[in-house]
Amino acid sequence: MAQNIYDDPAFFAAYAGLPRSVVGLDGAAEWPMLRSLLPDLVGRRMVDLGCGFGWYCRWAAEAGAASVLGIDLSTNMLERARGTTDDERITYEQQDLDALDLPAATFDVAFSSLTLHYLVHLDAVLTAVHRALVPGGAFVCSVEHPIFTAPTSPAFASAADGHPIWPLDAYSLEGPRTTDWLAPGVVKHHRTIGTYVSLLVAAGYTIASLIEWSPSDEQLVDHPEWTVERDRPPFLLLAARRH
Amino acid sequence: MAQNIYDDPAFFAAYAGLPRSVVGLDGAAEWPMLRSLLPDLVGRRMVDLGCGFGWYCRWAAEAGAASVLGIDLSTNMLERARGTTDDERITYEQQDLDALDLPAATFDVAFSSLTLHYLVHLDAVLTAVHRALVPGGAFVCSVEHPIFTAPTSPAFASAADGHPIWPLDAYSLEGPRTTDWLAPGVVKHHRTIGTYVSLLVAAGYTIASLIEWSPSDEQLVDHPEWTVERDRPPFLLLAARRH
Repeated sequence: MAQNIYDDPAFFAAYAGLPRSVVGLDGAAEWPMLRSLLPDLVGRRMVDLGCGFGWYCRWAAEAGAASVLGIDLSTNMLERARGTTDDERITYEQQDLDALDLPAATFDVAFSSLTLHYLVHLDAVLTAVHRALVPGGAFVCSVEHPIFTAPTSPAFASAADGHPIWPLDAYSLEGPRTTDWLAPGVVKHHRTIGTYVSLLVAAGYTIASLIEWSPSDEQLVDHPEWTVERDRPPFLLLAARRH
Repeated sequence: MAQNIYDDPAFFAAYAGLPRSVVGLDGAAEWPMLRSLLPDLVGRRMVDLGCGFGWYCRWAAEAGAASVLGIDLSTNMLERARGTTDDERITYEQQDLDALDLPAATFDVAFSSLTLHYLVHLDAVLTAVHRALVPGGAFVCSVEHPIFTAPTSPAFASAADGHPIWPLDAYSLEGPRTTDWLAPGVVKHHRTIGTYVSLLVAAGYTIASLIEWSPSDEQLVDHPEWTVERDRPPFLLLAARRH
């Protein structure tokens, strides 16, 4: 099973202080682009894998979804998510995504934000989601970009002339990466873009979009500190269809 | 149009000395993987975009292709290619791929090795190839990997502990990159993986495979000096189908 770092008190406290935890989707720089990959949700049934505080579930309900199922491993996250809504269309369920169990052909849309890189058995998850989607259903997700997860020292360094460089190494060496992000010993699973695509194709999806997110010119006006994100993409966004 | 660097005498002389120019496909590390993306060629009509010395055209004819059309911009390359075969199934044609003109629905397979990153108008090329393929036809290509083409200083550096790092920057800033590879002032066009995929999807292809090439364990036995290629992938291989 995946590491349950969100139930680590120190990690959870730090996570709860991040902009995206405090102000919600407006604090998630990649959200406008990720949202653009989602189909019209009016009357649709959506499942959110790794729902966290439920921001995306509540957004989907507001966007007209008929039902939204949020799944997370963390007791902390689900408690917070349940406390923020009384919308009867939204339900939350505790599951280890690495052993995901969903009924067949019951969702029009599957969604996952910044969760899949924590999972050990991505092939099984993608197959379970494929089975849970109706034919023609959409799968939309974001993960930390492989360029971001690969390095043995994942932090910007300086070139001789002082400009920032991302010290890439070990890109093709897939497997766990232990980093100290918000708490010591957070385990992520590094996979290449090639692996994400081949697992999706093997599981029976058609690739619709693959976006290596970087800030737009408009975003840089408000957030000039994001300029460095154009040197190496922090997020990979994928959209696929069950065929 | 694309830069015609292969008709620069100094560049051509240096290129002609590369292992892949001297020993052919056995000198191309990524060829076993690229070959695995090609369909059975027996009786098929293939076009090779940026055919160079014609190694792939001759391989395709030997593999049973009914006809092979090799296209290149360089007079030098075509002269050499024509001099190496009298197989009547193989024809060569001089064209600027940036203004590619092919008859509609006349090829079963389109192939391109390490050429597309020289082109300015990739969208137009992909559309022209799509039109030239029969429905269900295959497009298989390799390009220099965007991680390889992105940096302002594209050469390995050393981390503080001495291990090699690839100094990535400017990944999301697409456009020309002028490098001194074999000759000064070689112009390549950096595009992200996201752009390759979205151009293919927009042109009407279905993505079949996306491989970020790195050496296999078996290859490292013979070529331990390739170990560093696992730190950053040098080649991106793509296979798509016209639908």
